[in-house]
Amino acid sequence: MKAAVLRDQKFYVETVTTPVPAAGQVLIKVRACGICGSDLHFYKHSAHILAMAKKLGAPTADLERGLKEGLILGHEFVGEVVALGEGAGTSVSIGDRVCSMPFVLKEAGPALMGSTPETPGAYAEYMVLSEALCLKVDPSIPDEAAALTEPLGIAVHAVNKAAIQPGDVAVIVGCGTIGLAITAVLKIRGIETIIASDLSPRRRALATTMGASEVVNGKEISPVTRACEIAPGAKMVIFENTGAPGMLGRIINEAPQNAKIVVSGIAPGDESFIPMVAIMKELQISFIIYYTMEEFAEALTLVSGNQLNWRPLITASVGLESINDAFKALEDPEKHAKILIDPNKTGGL
Amino acid sequence: MKAAVLRDQKFYVETVTTPVPAAGQVLIKVRACGICGSDLHFYKHSAHILAMAKKLGAPTADLERGLKEGLILGHEFVGEVVALGEGAGTSVSIGDRVCSMPFVLKEAGPALMGSTPETPGAYAEYMVLSEALCLKVDPSIPDEAAALTEPLGIAVHAVNKAAIQPGDVAVIVGCGTIGLAITAVLKIRGIETIIASDLSPRRRALATTMGASEVVNGKEISPVTRACEIAPGAKMVIFENTGAPGMLGRIINEAPQNAKIVVSGIAPGDESFIPMVAIMKELQISFIIYYTMEEFAEALTLVSGNQLNWRPLITASVGLESINDAFKALEDPEKHAKILIDPNKTGGL
Repeated sequence: MKAAVLRDQKFYVETVTTPVPAAGQVLIKVRACGICGSDLHFYKHSAHILAMAKKLGAPTADLERGLKEGLILGHEFVGEVVALGEGAGTSVSIGDRVCSMPFVLKEAGPALMGSTPETPGAYAEYMVLSEALCLKVDPSIPDEAAALTEPLGIAVHAVNKAAIQPGDVAVIVGCGTIGLAITAVLKIRGIETIIASDLSPRRRALATTMGASEVVNGKEISPVTRACEIAPGAKMVIFENTGAPGMLGRIINEAPQNAKIVVSGIAPGDESFIPMVAIMKELQISFIIYYTMEEFAEALTLVSGNQLNWRPLITASVGLESINDAFKALEDPEKHAKILIDPNKTGGL
Repeated sequence: MKAAVLRDQKFYVETVTTPVPAAGQVLIKVRACGICGSDLHFYKHSAHILAMAKKLGAPTADLERGLKEGLILGHEFVGEVVALGEGAGTSVSIGDRVCSMPFVLKEAGPALMGSTPETPGAYAEYMVLSEALCLKVDPSIPDEAAALTEPLGIAVHAVNKAAIQPGDVAVIVGCGTIGLAITAVLKIRGIETIIASDLSPRRRALATTMGASEVVNGKEISPVTRACEIAPGAKMVIFENTGAPGMLGRIINEAPQNAKIVVSGIAPGDESFIPMVAIMKELQISFIIYYTMEEFAEALTLVSGNQLNWRPLITASVGLESINDAFKALEDPEKHAKILIDPNKTGGL
């Protein structure tokens, strides 16, 4: 099969062995896979990530091997079941479209897709999944929408962690896919005041489309300061999705009394802040990266029907050959939001 | 009346005007007032606190004036009502013993006791309280126990913020009054595994007395690492009460997946940590300093009867004249835990 293999900060479309589903696994033909911010981060900063993991004493042998041999990334996918491993086929059948949390169940525990050469991701024609983690995709849901289940799962999780209530005020710092998805989920949950900030005019326009009640250019005014002006004394939840150096410390300084901060943005190095400020205001900071199986399933239901206006999030769909162009294009927030890779397609941006 | 006035990092016992209760206020004769860690912090670091407040753009005029004119600290108190302001006397009567949250209600909002010359605290023979914030102390509760209501209120709040459940594991980093009080509250709430750490052998012994299931010397082994050994995979809540520079970053690195960290210790300057680590483990950090009126009331009920073994927490009770000695003695954790000031007493340590 064809796959986009990441090696030395570049993708190479190569012919690799098509995986064979083991016991409890299914083989899918990939129909679409979104490019995730974490893929972009890994693509650019793999050397830094490796150095930091080493510094923290985490095991790095698999990652080092993967960086040398090549990795197949991609974990925001939907595909069609085309073969069943031994004992598989109890909850899904050949011909079903499915998506899955980005793990393959192994004896040693769940293994993250794309993190080692043995657990390849979805930037490929085929991939194996653990049937136990698969969710069937209703025929009414287009591939593009189903491929958004994963980032929407993170948004559902972020909003759940915040335990936000109608009447509270939400601030969205950074309108990448996660910020936009959180905005959409908040809107569905009945939050009326949603102040979103991004440096990019196009991203601000998308935030309005997804449900923000007001958008600001973070270079001109802090969205936290603006939210305090609009709703003084309101309970506030601030979603930090940028990972920009210094952003969390700034939010801590600006946040009102008893604010909650939900951090999905991954700042690259150390971050500093003034604990006295966080203590005087009794702030709560929740760091998030995943979701539960239930939240993943809820995300899939959100894209069925017209509950969530997902179409504006997807700005292009390209073949495997265009993956390097797509990663490059995503560096400019004016050009694209979510780009899907469709291994069955040829043609680019 | 006599009062201990803090000026230039020293207390001076002086004769000052006895306050007169305004409308809605009561005058109390102070019977006991505990020395709080925050008083110690302010005593030593007032110049630094002022500089930081200025740096953050907070209003500092009152504090600057207070540092010049002198401040009367003390907010962990119990006293006897001896006079009523206009309209006061609906919920408390002359002769009642009361304690109160450390605020006086003013038109501009609640004003923290001890923070300005106009809102003096309890290191004095008399003080005024807002009747609305007073709680009557049952005659069965000794003064010493009632004076612990305030720090116990913080402990109740810390445990509530953690939303800890029986079966979870608690780690107490730092066994000053707050760490010891949290230990006692956790024990009452049915938490069985409580790992406490302190550098001082006497504090570790006190932690055992208050209900810790195991104590460690933090210089020899991290209590978080030890808790992970004892209860691998358990849900963990880590209470950071030291405010030691670097401690929060270290806890973030050591904490297990999904741990909650409740921070009551006030680190003096900036603190840094690695957000990637906090994100990968989905940590939650709650910063705390106060409590609700309900939590304050719950703290008072905890010292009635034999539910909470409060006696070991109090290691001395001295007159106003000994306040400088008492502040000095508290720098050595081997010597004392909580020292009470009793303005009706003469005699020292």
